Amino acid sequence: MTEVDVKQKVLAANAAAAAGLRETFARAGTLVVNLISSPGSGKTTLLEKTIAALKGSLRLGGLEGDIATERDAERLRRTGIPARQILTGGSCHLDARQVERALAEEGGRLSNLDVLFIENVGNLICPTGYDLGEDFKVVLLSVTEGEDKPFKYPAIFARAAVTVVTKIDLLPYVAFDLAAVRDQVASLAPEGRLVEVSATTGAGMDAWLSILTGALAKKRAAVGATR
Amino acid sequence: MTEVDVKQKVLAANAAAAAGLRETFARAGTLVVNLISSPGSGKTTLLEKTIAALKGSLRLGGLEGDIATERDAERLRRTGIPARQILTGGSCHLDARQVERALAEEGGRLSNLDVLFIENVGNLICPTGYDLGEDFKVVLLSVTEGEDKPFKYPAIFARAAVTVVTKIDLLPYVAFDLAAVRDQVASLAPEGRLVEVSATTGAGMDAWLSILTGALAKKRAAVGATR
Repeated sequence: MTEVDVKQKVLAANAAAAAGLRETFARAGTLVVNLISSPGSGKTTLLEKTIAALKGSLRLGGLEGDIATERDAERLRRTGIPARQILTGGSCHLDARQVERALAEEGGRLSNLDVLFIENVGNLICPTGYDLGEDFKVVLLSVTEGEDKPFKYPAIFARAAVTVVTKIDLLPYVAFDLAAVRDQVASLAPEGRLVEVSATTGAGMDAWLSILTGALAKKRAAVGATR
Repeated sequence: MTEVDVKQKVLAANAAAAAGLRETFARAGTLVVNLISSPGSGKTTLLEKTIAALKGSLRLGGLEGDIATERDAERLRRTGIPARQILTGGSCHLDARQVERALAEEGGRLSNLDVLFIENVGNLICPTGYDLGEDFKVVLLSVTEGEDKPFKYPAIFARAAVTVVTKIDLLPYVAFDLAAVRDQVASLAPEGRLVEVSATTGAGMDAWLSILTGALAKKRAAVGATR
């Protein structure tokens, strides 16, 4: 087998596992969101604030992908929801079989949820092509990273249904062309949504939360219709 | 071949190419620095300021690795030095054969330099294992990314001879435990250097520049000794 053959075989196996996960999530009526960004864009912090806002009314859970440490799963567990760390063994992305295994090993603690958040390994490239059975991908971009990122990493911004521009409380202190980001994301993902948030001040959180609750309502209606 | 075999074959081919590059750079007395970080940590901005400070006295050049766009090479060329963009064809890191090819295609414009800066694809994972024939790796971490990164991506912080903490002008506006980063980097890379800079204010730039000029002096002495 050549390098290309191996890659295709890996992606085919991933797609098969992802299809199985998607069926499982549909049966349970669980909305699954796959969060992707550079390291340090604020994925875990956004989840902490999201969980604080929604956990009173919804059953939530989290899967955290990393190369090393249980830090992020611990941060989610401190919010009071079940969360499991997946250490990827050096790999720069989660794959669907890791998600399958993690859910099986949790023995039901991460099943029958309203929303399962999957926080991918901090990386704008590798996670792009790996379907985890999610309803949609969310890409985060912090204003400290520079407005060139949707140009330099177009694939993930094209595939994500939602772009979250984070840390907007830091806009006064950095050079960041928000209009350029809005234009480029609109051109890469014409059907996509873009929200601008600060987990620190709470700005924009309502728009983000309503995307989640809207998607959950839509999924429940679709699951109800097929039952 | 299994997936593991393919990976080993790729790394062996890379190591052979890197050894060739290292010989070429040694003959030319060129110091080669491989810069690695998350997207948006400030690699290109640090290089712009470094070039502005050194180009009067040294012959400098740049290789820029990215998935998409010529933006970074254009930024370096605007400083007045020769620079070439390498588009990696979707790959999340540069490899030594891409560097070989780029140097050959430049037909001497990136040879006989004092310092060649190689800016890797924005990624804390993939570039770690790929030797490009450099004298040393530099990892950048911006204070907006959070102090957990050396814990979550230990391999690159262990392998980099220099850690540059960037954007320290933003320290008043973010929660960032600098002491934790200093301790963790010292434990991962006991022989390594750590500098804290702001390309905006110029703070710390002298320490960074003196690492480069010191390493160049040492390399020239070594090259001279073997001639």
